[in-house]
Amino acid sequence: MSQTNGTIFIVVAPSGAGKTSLVSALLQAEPSVELSVSYTTRAPRQGEENGKHYHFSDRATFENMIATGDFLEYAEVYGNYYGTSKRWLRERLAAGRDILLEIDWQGARQVREVFPDAVSVFILPPSIAVLEARLRGRATDSEEVIARRLSEARAEIDQVAEYDYLIVNDDFEQARLDLISVIRSQRLRGERQCRHHQAAIAAMQTPA
Amino acid sequence: MSQTNGTIFIVVAPSGAGKTSLVSALLQAEPSVELSVSYTTRAPRQGEENGKHYHFSDRATFENMIATGDFLEYAEVYGNYYGTSKRWLRERLAAGRDILLEIDWQGARQVREVFPDAVSVFILPPSIAVLEARLRGRATDSEEVIARRLSEARAEIDQVAEYDYLIVNDDFEQARLDLISVIRSQRLRGERQCRHHQAAIAAMQTPA
Repeated sequence: MSQTNGTIFIVVAPSGAGKTSLVSALLQAEPSVELSVSYTTRAPRQGEENGKHYHFSDRATFENMIATGDFLEYAEVYGNYYGTSKRWLRERLAAGRDILLEIDWQGARQVREVFPDAVSVFILPPSIAVLEARLRGRATDSEEVIARRLSEARAEIDQVAEYDYLIVNDDFEQARLDLISVIRSQRLRGERQCRHHQAAIAAMQTPA
Repeated sequence: MSQTNGTIFIVVAPSGAGKTSLVSALLQAEPSVELSVSYTTRAPRQGEENGKHYHFSDRATFENMIATGDFLEYAEVYGNYYGTSKRWLRERLAAGRDILLEIDWQGARQVREVFPDAVSVFILPPSIAVLEARLRGRATDSEEVIARRLSEARAEIDQVAEYDYLIVNDDFEQARLDLISVIRSQRLRGERQCRHHQAAIAAMQTPA
């Protein structure tokens, strides 16, 4: 088979570790990586495109997908459903696309159960002090919210040994290059490349 | 243990695939990677430093190292010995250094037997036609030499499925970024990073 399946990348980080900026820099540097597109029952906002920002769906369709077990994970927030479709992920992977999921550590475990080949990346702050300074820097959160975020961050960091790759976001540019390296190197794995370049390689080998 | 062991990288490519330029660009971008330094009994040339270009050794010492089985591989060329010392490699790895070995596919097999954690990279030309054009471009080789090089290249490419990573050197800049990604991503592996940042991580986790 000449088709090369894509890879699922799971990126997990405590709030304040800099995940959003890093993922956005990654998508710019490696446009062939796609962010996972969730299904939702909420109405599209101005400028949101179906299939790009969300898969907009009516309640009956969404609940039918729940019933058939299609959701990797889903939640109801303020009366609207949000969820990640296994079928959609499988279709994108089969089309050779790499898909990036930004989730929490519980979600990461669920994804790995269904997609054991998923590659997981954890982004760490250099220290709790730096994380706290970053959370305070936002200036919008109360002491109580900051304390809760720090406690959640510690709980997330408790699970760090489960991840395939670990990036310390001390210097943003270094962390950006690190994340790009992890994604890029997966595509260079021997097995994947041998499938992808099967015909070219066969033509270069000793004729049988 | 807070010490993080380094990694051995094996880079293999048929003659004309562009390995020398790629490795040299890698060493410039990632100065923490060291080229393996061979032992030799030949006399130092102008500007060659002991321990940097070669480990210069007398014949008795070299033959004693052969007798004790210290060489990963060695050869006698025009009356001088050349060899790679297992002990030297182990010392550099224990010091946390990443060491790159440029060898052929037979050498790669020997290294993997002794160092099963070695990470192997194969650099492929995009096609035999391109490889042939590159070999002809040197303009110094006879038809006979070119024919032999192509036949050796095919034999080398026959073994491509044995490698951890496979880089197609079609566009030099892309291949350069590929090679950097492979080396860089190894340092980000969870297990290695958890050891390397053990104290910092423990300080960020939920207090016991």
